[in-house]
Order: sequence, then C-alpha cells, then structure tokens
Amino acid sequence: MSERYFEDLKPGDRFKSGTYEVSEEQIISFARKFDPQPFHLDAAVARQTMFKELIASGWHTAAITMRLFVQTLNFAEGAIGLGVDELRWLNAFKPGDVLQVETEIADLRLSRSKPAHGIVRFRKVTTNQRGEIVQTMTASALVLRRRE
Amino acid sequence: MSERYFEDLKPGDRFKSGTYEVSEEQIISFARKFDPQPFHLDAAVARQTMFKELIASGWHTAAITMRLFVQTLNFAEGAIGLGVDELRWLNAFKPGDVLQVETEIADLRLSRSKPAHGIVRFRKVTTNQRGEIVQTMTASALVLRRRE
Repeated sequence: MSERYFEDLKPGDRFKSGTYEVSEEQIISFARKFDPQPFHLDAAVARQTMFKELIASGWHTAAITMRLFVQTLNFAEGAIGLGVDELRWLNAFKPGDVLQVETEIADLRLSRSKPAHGIVRFRKVTTNQRGEIVQTMTASALVLRRRE
Repeated sequence: MSERYFEDLKPGDRFKSGTYEVSEEQIISFARKFDPQPFHLDAAVARQTMFKELIASGWHTAAITMRLFVQTLNFAEGAIGLGVDELRWLNAFKPGDVLQVETEIADLRLSRSKPAHGIVRFRKVTTNQRGEIVQTMTASALVLRRRE
C-alpha cells in the first residue's frame, strides 16, 4: 500500500478501516496491565455490576482504534499525535465484538514550527458489528508534507 | 486500602499516584499491538526520525496513567469512564522513564439518570522522573455514592 502525505488529504475525505475482533482473554489481559477494575477483569464479578457482563476498558477501545487508524491511513514516517478532544465511550465493548473505525478529515493546516509537516484534525468513529457507536473522538496529528 | 466513594471527594482535592517504569521491550510490545509506527517500534529506525530515539505511543502513556489512577483512587466498584477532553502529549516518553500521575478533583455533581452514582471530573497530569509534563487530560467518570 502506498504511503500517504499531507497533500493527499482534503477536508471531508473519509476512510474506513479493516476490522478487529477481541476475545475475553485479550480484554482481561489489557485490564490486568492498565485498567484493573472489577467489570474489566472477571466475567463472574462483572455480572454483579450495572453492565451485567464483562466489558473492555475504554483505553483498550482507544488503543484498538489507533491500530485500525494507523493501518488504514498509512502515513509516510507515521502520524505524530498532538492531542485528543471529545473522546467519548458511548456503548460497552464486549468479548467477541468486532470493531471498525471510520476516519473523517476535519481540518488541515500547515505547521508553523515544523515546515516539513502539516497538522491534520481527524474525526474518528469506532463502531461494532451491529453498527452501534462504541467511541468517538477528535484527534490532531503532525503528518509529513511531500518534498518538492 | 479502604475503598473510596463519591462523598469522600471535594473540589480541589489532589492525589499523587505511585510510579511506573517502562522498558524498551514494553514500549515496543505495546506499539506492535496498538500503534505500529516506526518511531515506536525500532530504536534504530527511531534515530532517523525527529525524535532521534525510541518513544512510547501516546496511548501507552494514557493506559499507564489509567493504571496509576485506578490504584491510587481505589473507588468502590470502580470508576466508569464517560469521556476525556483536552488530552495532550507534551513531552516524549522514552525507555527507562518513570511515570507518576497527579489527579485533581475538578468538579462533582450527582447523576440524574443513575441515582446511585455521582459524576466526577478529574484533571490528571502525568510527569516523568525529571518533573517534565508528559501528558495532561480532563476525564469524567461515574463513581458510586455511599448507601444511606
């Protein structure tokens, strides 16, 4: 797949990622390392909570979203994350769910401090196999410009 | 350590976490799974980039921040993440760096839809062993109220 540069994007462009299925084992393994809370760690305990079953950490969803984004956009030398706003977890993400990310180009501008780069603002929507929205965010990143 | 409830917090309260040191191997392992970009994957390749050395994924920083937060605040039945704003990565996080999180209670209110819970807004600042700010964010979560 060819590498993408800043000049290859325009506002309103949309990119649909591949898919990513997550097992109960992966959800528990992520939670043990990074988000050791009862509803992420143990299906039996999770049944006693408001979720009624095991759910993945929101940070696991965010990390999988990054993977799907990186593979889809494939920026030359990578996209350097600057920040994220309006990150929202709207529906629980459970074992066996299959995630997919749609990325829309919200805004493009040149970087004042890094002339080789542009700044891209992305709107990312992560859905499950039933089309329910699991997560939304707006993210900004430095992306390489084409050399003259 | 005793469990914390909504009523145990007041605006302006601050909590300092323990520390978390990350190896080159852990940075590469996280990046292979979730953020496979050249400057996160391979120290030799990273030397050719603007960072001059291997750096961790911002999502790895965010995940470690969650772990340090969860262990420090220790909410009864956990804190249910609703969303995050103003997530910013201000300095690179490199192999051997030691992270620590300071959490400030920004705002507290009762939940209208979930009477057993309150909504807490946290301001979290993640620093390294040199006191440099690696990441900042504002996060909202549902936290259990004490039963009468």
